Amino acid sequence: MKDLKTALGDNAKAVNRVLDDLLVMSGGPESRVVEAMRYTALSGGKRIRPFLVTASADLFNVNKTSALRVAAAVEMIHCYSLIHDDLPAMDNDDLRRGQPTCHIQFDEATAILAGDALLTKAFEVVAGEETHDSSTVRAELTLALAKASGEAGMVGGQMLDLVAEDHELNMPEVTRLQRMKTGALIAVSCEAGAILGKASKNAHHVLHAYAHDIGLAFQIADDLLDVEGDEKEVGKKTGKDAAAGKATFVSLLGVERAREQAQLLADQAASHLDIFEEKAKLLKDLAHYVVNRTA
Amino acid sequence: MKDLKTALGDNAKAVNRVLDDLLVMSGGPESRVVEAMRYTALSGGKRIRPFLVTASADLFNVNKTSALRVAAAVEMIHCYSLIHDDLPAMDNDDLRRGQPTCHIQFDEATAILAGDALLTKAFEVVAGEETHDSSTVRAELTLALAKASGEAGMVGGQMLDLVAEDHELNMPEVTRLQRMKTGALIAVSCEAGAILGKASKNAHHVLHAYAHDIGLAFQIADDLLDVEGDEKEVGKKTGKDAAAGKATFVSLLGVERAREQAQLLADQAASHLDIFEEKAKLLKDLAHYVVNRTA
Repeated sequence: MKDLKTALGDNAKAVNRVLDDLLVMSGGPESRVVEAMRYTALSGGKRIRPFLVTASADLFNVNKTSALRVAAAVEMIHCYSLIHDDLPAMDNDDLRRGQPTCHIQFDEATAILAGDALLTKAFEVVAGEETHDSSTVRAELTLALAKASGEAGMVGGQMLDLVAEDHELNMPEVTRLQRMKTGALIAVSCEAGAILGKASKNAHHVLHAYAHDIGLAFQIADDLLDVEGDEKEVGKKTGKDAAAGKATFVSLLGVERAREQAQLLADQAASHLDIFEEKAKLLKDLAHYVVNRTA
Repeated sequence: MKDLKTALGDNAKAVNRVLDDLLVMSGGPESRVVEAMRYTALSGGKRIRPFLVTASADLFNVNKTSALRVAAAVEMIHCYSLIHDDLPAMDNDDLRRGQPTCHIQFDEATAILAGDALLTKAFEVVAGEETHDSSTVRAELTLALAKASGEAGMVGGQMLDLVAEDHELNMPEVTRLQRMKTGALIAVSCEAGAILGKASKNAHHVLHAYAHDIGLAFQIADDLLDVEGDEKEVGKKTGKDAAAGKATFVSLLGVERAREQAQLLADQAASHLDIFEEKAKLLKDLAHYVVNRTA
């Protein structure tokens, strides 16, 4: 079996090929928006969410084309959220994945539209016949992705984050915010594999538990990187949370306890997958990778 | 049979009830985004697109709940596009349907998120089991809606509109722009009835032809209102196109020929529906209504 680093790299390349195929410039002047979609969607990144899709799909022997299309759709949703999150009216960030953000490279209006179109495209891809023979699976995937991304998931989390600027959050509030803002899309990435593979209820449940723990661990690691990370390596501005006076896992727990907590969650995430035995090795390794990454 | 005015009014009320049910405030601080979604989605408007869904669904005796959910989803997509289109980086409008636009009433960040969440919610609603017994129908609706709304449809049209600010468009270019920007969502509204009703290929084709003509007629009427309409009655700023030096059907054809062209298209739209006989009366009347409206 491949080691995690190779598997992550191979998966990123495969997802990029699918994204490249799906984001087609028509040639008309409106292609500018596709150019902006491609700029962000093909800009690199670790592709952890798409990896969660394909690795969880592998547990159920889902065919590669299906898994990669859904992985690409999830990455489109992630990228749309980055583009909108970086806008001047939101986080006002100039740098992302080591490159100028979409509205800096193009302009604000184009960035808004590119985000909108990536979100829309994700649903087009998931609902398309090429994604799965079963329309039930396609409808279920659409529903799960929409729920995870909308006002009760990712967008709701972003709203919470904005509202939180006016009052300091406590631990349960920060946890809820992160479960919505980043956790929901991570969870649906794992769930997608189970949906594609028509997995048992128990398998769904186990993957959900894994996703929950890995999502929180991932976020704590992100908070740690914002405090301790190297800006060049991380590829975006660091020290932002402290500067904004934002409550994070690190500001609430301190660096040491936050790191311990992340490790604990990673262990716990991995242990959920014991029922899959050797097959889940990459997903288990990923749990530890996300807390020990430096970018 | 009801007359068109009564049917439009009844339909608007029914769609509003469904929107009211679907856009639920969770009670948490993130409810602010739902408040903004509701502010725009429940702010009135003629509800022509939802009417196209329910009236075309009626041609095939689709059950009301199915049709109204899809109608609500289409209205959500329309409203999201209004919210984002009104943003300072886009058209920078303060007034919409006679009320402050979403970013004026709330703030820019909330408006961006509310648009994102409405778009997402539309797919959640369409893919939901309550929408139709057949998952094939649900997946097909998702696909059609996404295609109409994305980079090759509505968003592409908005991009064209922005790019057009730098050079004057000719008649074929204006027609293409409007087919994408407003025509695609109008077309899919009619198509949705046929999908819900598992209609024949021919019925699909006929509704598509109707939608195409009514879409252009609608846009010409919009351009005429921008020149001749009363700001209070129209509910948004008028004279914008001329002030921006934008090529429109009216600037290219002149008022008289534009009006003639709109009437011609309305007649043509109605005649496509002859195969449905009396059943299509409301849709035929609508074709004439959209070109003669004063708001």
